[in-house]
Amino acid sequence: MTSQLLPPAVDWVEGSIEVVDQRLLPDELRLLRLSSVAEAVEAIATLAVRGAPAIGICAAFAMVLGLDEARRPGETAKAREGTVTSTAEVLDSVARRLSAARPTAVNLSWAVEKVRAAASTGSSLTEARQRALSEAVAIAEQDKASSERIGELGAEALRGASSILTHCNTGRLVSAGWGTALAAVYAKARAGEAVRVYACEARPLLQGARLTMWELLRAGVAATLVVDAAAATLMQRRLVDAVIVGADRIACNGDTANKVGTLSLAALAAHFGVPFWVAAPLSTLDFACSSGESIVVEQRSAGEVLAFRGQACAPPGADAWNPAFDVTPGELVTGFVTEVGILTPPFDEALAR
Amino acid sequence: MTSQLLPPAVDWVEGSIEVVDQRLLPDELRLLRLSSVAEAVEAIATLAVRGAPAIGICAAFAMVLGLDEARRPGETAKAREGTVTSTAEVLDSVARRLSAARPTAVNLSWAVEKVRAAASTGSSLTEARQRALSEAVAIAEQDKASSERIGELGAEALRGASSILTHCNTGRLVSAGWGTALAAVYAKARAGEAVRVYACEARPLLQGARLTMWELLRAGVAATLVVDAAAATLMQRRLVDAVIVGADRIACNGDTANKVGTLSLAALAAHFGVPFWVAAPLSTLDFACSSGESIVVEQRSAGEVLAFRGQACAPPGADAWNPAFDVTPGELVTGFVTEVGILTPPFDEALAR
Repeated sequence: MTSQLLPPAVDWVEGSIEVVDQRLLPDELRLLRLSSVAEAVEAIATLAVRGAPAIGICAAFAMVLGLDEARRPGETAKAREGTVTSTAEVLDSVARRLSAARPTAVNLSWAVEKVRAAASTGSSLTEARQRALSEAVAIAEQDKASSERIGELGAEALRGASSILTHCNTGRLVSAGWGTALAAVYAKARAGEAVRVYACEARPLLQGARLTMWELLRAGVAATLVVDAAAATLMQRRLVDAVIVGADRIACNGDTANKVGTLSLAALAAHFGVPFWVAAPLSTLDFACSSGESIVVEQRSAGEVLAFRGQACAPPGADAWNPAFDVTPGELVTGFVTEVGILTPPFDEALAR
Repeated sequence: MTSQLLPPAVDWVEGSIEVVDQRLLPDELRLLRLSSVAEAVEAIATLAVRGAPAIGICAAFAMVLGLDEARRPGETAKAREGTVTSTAEVLDSVARRLSAARPTAVNLSWAVEKVRAAASTGSSLTEARQRALSEAVAIAEQDKASSERIGELGAEALRGASSILTHCNTGRLVSAGWGTALAAVYAKARAGEAVRVYACEARPLLQGARLTMWELLRAGVAATLVVDAAAATLMQRRLVDAVIVGADRIACNGDTANKVGTLSLAALAAHFGVPFWVAAPLSTLDFACSSGESIVVEQRSAGEVLAFRGQACAPPGADAWNPAFDVTPGELVTGFVTEVGILTPPFDEALAR
């Protein structure tokens, strides 16, 4: 694996958040500096930064930006005083704005809540800000360590599989480390195993084509792009040995929200007898969610389907239905690769073990 | 159903073939005049004219153009003499060129063979040309009548289904009449039934988005576009009552070659318990083909996946796998809607009844 250097997908640089602007890839690798909560919300909502772990890290750092904004001159006198009450109000308000940026990935609200809890123990805005930053940095470091472990365990799950089908983008661009599903591929490649990835393009926004192909090419991993609709043929012809995908929210029973098209791959994998793995950090498990029925699936604008980069795909007046995610029943998943092991639901029992 | 006038997808006009140039839709409705075999082959290979029945009709008329070319001054003396031998040679040569334009749809070689057989009974090139044209016109008329009947029988198959999922484009643009799968929708709409079509976009060339949405909007039929990967969610949420698709070649056991993505829809329909219908004229049945294993699936260029209308979707150097079709096992098909009835394989027995 000859890898080209890649800046971190999300980082804290000189008091701001720095992200790789994923809207511009693969045409241009540009870093985007986010210096306010509004800019962070915008970056998350427009998918400049995307992928469950990455938006969690970004939102964690954005909590720090929210406290910074409250500390600046011109903010309310109450906030300036830095009382515990006002800190809590600031944290509440910023947490609400960030959590609303995208509804489906649980890592976002998980990270926001962790930072809020840490910051709220501070006795002043300044102390809260310090604790928030420490917690956000810890979340990013934990994600990096988790992705390393997910990679190792994922490589074990994929042992003997040299041709791997994946969906959307789940690698270095979604994480402070190697990502989730692609981390398993990177771990296999690092171990010198022969591996080829078939990447589904992930319409409408083509994260597979634009991002997964880009990062795999840079990492020197053999990769072939397919339209989402060709995945069934790959399985029928035994051209792939396993499927591995990431997740945005996993319910207690294993029902998994992930990029639209995941359900299709899972049902097809069951039909054709191909193992279907989900790779995600524990922060993607939502213990408040007993099954997929209660997962809110984000509907995005019809325009994402009706046009591609300003080029119309459909006639004027056409309507489109554009759920960003789908929910795969837990029973279609061979196993869940997490940083603490390969789990199967129910997760409370699995984690107790 | 308030329908806007649409020129025939393929027609014989003033000694040439006139087709709607489907590469330009939905942006522009432009007619393309094909005056030579070379132009017809190019139009078929580049998908200016597409869809199994339409390319059959186009190729049938192109056989006439081939005989016209042989009759023009400047052709070989042998061909000008108009002997039976030279007519046969001309017909062989033109048939070979046309049949090679696209390998998967059997209607192409079926129509070419019908015209060759009719023309070869002519005792001169002129008589052969006359018989070829009569046969080509008959093929177009038969297609129109078949599509009417397929529509009626398809509407019966879809009785009680008001929300219909389809793939690619199978309507007025693929036929001299109302098409195949969409003919059933048109028949339901004509009968005053409430009907909504969910159209899969059919990456990479977006025939669903560009063509199906265009003709359904013009016909006043309610239609919603979805990315191919969202079809599973439509079925999971019971938002569609049935799936109906066309076919490019059907083997004796019911294995069906059709636009890539069809296999996926069929397997998902089986998984979610949704009826899955195939609509096609009998000319799509290939009695020389016992099963799908012997169907040649056309591989098209990676460029179709890697870019959309000149806009790159993937990084430079990326590779793509681009089968134009897939093969759906016959056992996943609820029934085959043909002009002689709703059939199930084996077709020789079904047709004998």
